[in-house]
Amino acid sequence: MREVFQQELREVQDRLVEIAELVVISIQNATRAFNDSDVTLAETVIADDSKIDELTVILDELSIQILARQQPVARDLRIVVSALRISASLERMGDMAEHIAQLARYRFPDKVVPKSLRGTFAEMGRLDVVIAQKLAELLRTQDLELADEIRNEDDRIDELHVSVFDKVLGETWKGQAVDTVDATLASRYHERFADHAVSIAKKVHYLGTGDWAPELAS
Amino acid sequence: MREVFQQELREVQDRLVEIAELVVISIQNATRAFNDSDVTLAETVIADDSKIDELTVILDELSIQILARQQPVARDLRIVVSALRISASLERMGDMAEHIAQLARYRFPDKVVPKSLRGTFAEMGRLDVVIAQKLAELLRTQDLELADEIRNEDDRIDELHVSVFDKVLGETWKGQAVDTVDATLASRYHERFADHAVSIAKKVHYLGTGDWAPELAS
Repeated sequence: MREVFQQELREVQDRLVEIAELVVISIQNATRAFNDSDVTLAETVIADDSKIDELTVILDELSIQILARQQPVARDLRIVVSALRISASLERMGDMAEHIAQLARYRFPDKVVPKSLRGTFAEMGRLDVVIAQKLAELLRTQDLELADEIRNEDDRIDELHVSVFDKVLGETWKGQAVDTVDATLASRYHERFADHAVSIAKKVHYLGTGDWAPELAS
Repeated sequence: MREVFQQELREVQDRLVEIAELVVISIQNATRAFNDSDVTLAETVIADDSKIDELTVILDELSIQILARQQPVARDLRIVVSALRISASLERMGDMAEHIAQLARYRFPDKVVPKSLRGTFAEMGRLDVVIAQKLAELLRTQDLELADEIRNEDDRIDELHVSVFDKVLGETWKGQAVDTVDATLASRYHERFADHAVSIAKKVHYLGTGDWAPELAS
């Protein structure tokens, strides 16, 4: 029984990694579509999001089946419950990538943000991709150093998020209302994407260290 | 054992209702603070959000204890897993109320949105309060008609959300960049608040009807 359980846990882990890898592709494509106004790529991201949603449902069903069949307790139970929560956050990361792609599609053939902010968003997008890659690696290897790295990248994204508002609310901003709306939403989506990654990283970290009150800090 | 389990499930339900009632108070205060620029009330909402967060952690711990001790299967298992998910959504609803209050505080003593949008936000806020009240009632009574009503109120909020962007991007919009940012964020927070309620309502609905593939539709 114990061996079957370990095997099922490995399947859960493999499926989390699989979803995380799709999220990597999704944010890579979404940020490229956003920065280059590539509407075809944007549509790919939007279409592919349902794949992430489906895999999340399958993983959640698997986790519930494991709870029913294996009746895990203690740390094993927390691993399965964490998988349910991690999948929910991955699914939301996919949604954020989709929202970024939708902004690119709405404004096509125009670019989503004016020149003065393109560098900032290119950097936010690059960091979101790095975070997603590190997250997939963290889920695969359980190397907790990656969790710290994700938090550091997120701090940098938060700074850029603040800088977007400084720019938009500053005296030199010449953008139209549409530019202001887009910059506001795009910055929020980029920042939320990273927040979800941090929330997952914390869960993996607490599972690794055995400290069970993660939600208070999340 | 069965009786103990039923009693524990009732405690889970009571705690969900308790959190939902705090969310009602939170969104009532947040929307009032937002509409009236009441900074004291805004600060109350922001301070009180940690109470919602704490109760969510306590409920999650209780749910995990029940899984460990009672080893529920089938529908009972799904009820406990759903409680974990519902608490996460309630916690996010509290966050959205807090974000609305934060907007009021940032702009104080100014109002958050210009006159031309105040009626729209007053109506969005009113609907969010109604939705939160119906949600608390749904969790208390399991009256599935309330789930349908919540979905209808959410449709109305979505219309108002679209109308905010129509206004902001229209030719008559005279707002400054700060007004545009605030309207964009406020509309998003009001809309997300309702989305989370719909997601909870769906879970309660599926628990009530026994149809287990809710996440695909969420």
